[in-house]
Amino acid sequence: MKVIRTITELRRELSLMRKKQAIHSEETIVGLVPTMGYLHQGHASLMKAAREQSHIVVLSIFVNPIQFGPNEDFESYPRDEQRDLETARAEGVDIVFIPSVEEMYPQPTQTTIAVSGITERLCGASRPGHFNGVTTVVSKLFNIVQPQKAFFGMKDAQQVAVIEQMVHDLNMPVDIIPCPIVREQDGLALSSRNVYLSAELRQEALVLSQALRAAQESVEIGTAVTAKDIRRLLHEHIGKSAHAVIDYAEIQAFPSLEPLADQEELNAYDDLLIALAVKFGKTRLIDNIRIQKMEVLSHV
Amino acid sequence: MKVIRTITELRRELSLMRKKQAIHSEETIVGLVPTMGYLHQGHASLMKAAREQSHIVVLSIFVNPIQFGPNEDFESYPRDEQRDLETARAEGVDIVFIPSVEEMYPQPTQTTIAVSGITERLCGASRPGHFNGVTTVVSKLFNIVQPQKAFFGMKDAQQVAVIEQMVHDLNMPVDIIPCPIVREQDGLALSSRNVYLSAELRQEALVLSQALRAAQESVEIGTAVTAKDIRRLLHEHIGKSAHAVIDYAEIQAFPSLEPLADQEELNAYDDLLIALAVKFGKTRLIDNIRIQKMEVLSHV
Repeated sequence: MKVIRTITELRRELSLMRKKQAIHSEETIVGLVPTMGYLHQGHASLMKAAREQSHIVVLSIFVNPIQFGPNEDFESYPRDEQRDLETARAEGVDIVFIPSVEEMYPQPTQTTIAVSGITERLCGASRPGHFNGVTTVVSKLFNIVQPQKAFFGMKDAQQVAVIEQMVHDLNMPVDIIPCPIVREQDGLALSSRNVYLSAELRQEALVLSQALRAAQESVEIGTAVTAKDIRRLLHEHIGKSAHAVIDYAEIQAFPSLEPLADQEELNAYDDLLIALAVKFGKTRLIDNIRIQKMEVLSHV
Repeated sequence: MKVIRTITELRRELSLMRKKQAIHSEETIVGLVPTMGYLHQGHASLMKAAREQSHIVVLSIFVNPIQFGPNEDFESYPRDEQRDLETARAEGVDIVFIPSVEEMYPQPTQTTIAVSGITERLCGASRPGHFNGVTTVVSKLFNIVQPQKAFFGMKDAQQVAVIEQMVHDLNMPVDIIPCPIVREQDGLALSSRNVYLSAELRQEALVLSQALRAAQESVEIGTAVTAKDIRRLLHEHIGKSAHAVIDYAEIQAFPSLEPLADQEELNAYDDLLIALAVKFGKTRLIDNIRIQKMEVLSHV
């Protein structure tokens, strides 16, 4: 496994690897897993998917300053390079790209990629400029690595939707592969930010996955019929935590993220996303669940 | 020469051509010449440069609606596909890509690329949103064609500066090759929009190149010392045309396009751009000249 810190060296190494691979296969698939590091089993699942679907796997680790707001946790975001490299090695990654902020932004970027519409809701409403920072850095990584496939976790479902929209609109030659959320045994969605939680808040944070599971069940058994039913149910469950402060608890169409009005009936939609952002103390956690309508198979 | 109208077919054809070329050369250079068609000898000079520097030359012809303002000439912009194809064939182009608006924008784009700073002056000030339309479509074309080199005319000097900034900021894997302005014998810079001019206005429009040449000479012989001298001189020359209405007549550093204050001395700069935008009737023409400081060679 190579650990590379500059764009020039990464391009040179990838060019060599691609040429070697071209001897063995008709087409060379480079798989990119973009991360901010402090890797957990959610990231490991992305690397596993990349390893299965690509000839060359590149993991990038970069805490991207321009996607953090002025009062957010850029400085304190957890970092552990040595442990990250061990995780990457265990997952069979070929190249770990760990650029410095100066390498990625030798001058402040004058160029920004903005996706309108779907970025204005949910996390976009609470974190102005966040998604412009994400799309800009992801597009830089795509241009540097030139991957055929890029792997993203569905925990950031809105991020997946935004990146898919960008790739579609700008004809980027890359397939976006969304991978399922990975959870602890007790249901907590894995996140690098979980490390911020005290034992007490860690326990209270279980209301997120519980609320989502309850909402899903209510849709399936038919006790929740409208968007209002879901909103009420989410607020009830999250309200069980004394410290939870809801940023949003929403239901919308996926991937458009068009919000559903209270009276809208859920069975009119084939693909819904229930998404939460909740603060426990200073720690803002997100979680979500997708509800896709199954084809009803008629057994004659 | 292949004439291709869809993105899927273009990608397939380029992939085949790249594979064929890989047998003969270590690296395959694809050269892209992005145009809006109605080709003249200025465009031909770009195709010649591309032919000299690339294995595969792609010419794109696309009148991009999103770079035109609501009161601009998108609908009436001159088009002549048959003549364009003849020009392309004569210049040895391999692929002409002529997509429809629906092919490039199956839905209105939600994604926009914006370059701040250098887009706010000159044409950016007169044509709000114009450069966002340019950077967005150029980035689409780069993603579709994946060229190693892209050729742009210096007549749109600000466009070149904006695209170079975008390529730099987003790490796009393409070299931008700026090519010199091509002029008629009497000095008029070639432009597809020259066709709009009556014989009388066509004659009056010569003040543009005359003003630029006079400004250059005054800098060289030392009669123009400050930015104010240049501005006065440009206004004097252009004022000789009864119909000319100046949009801007400016001098700035290149490629930053930082404006020079009136009292600034020209010899403090290594690379200056004198740029004009002037309306003759309904027709807005642009022209420019670059003044680069020569290294003084000492002959011992």
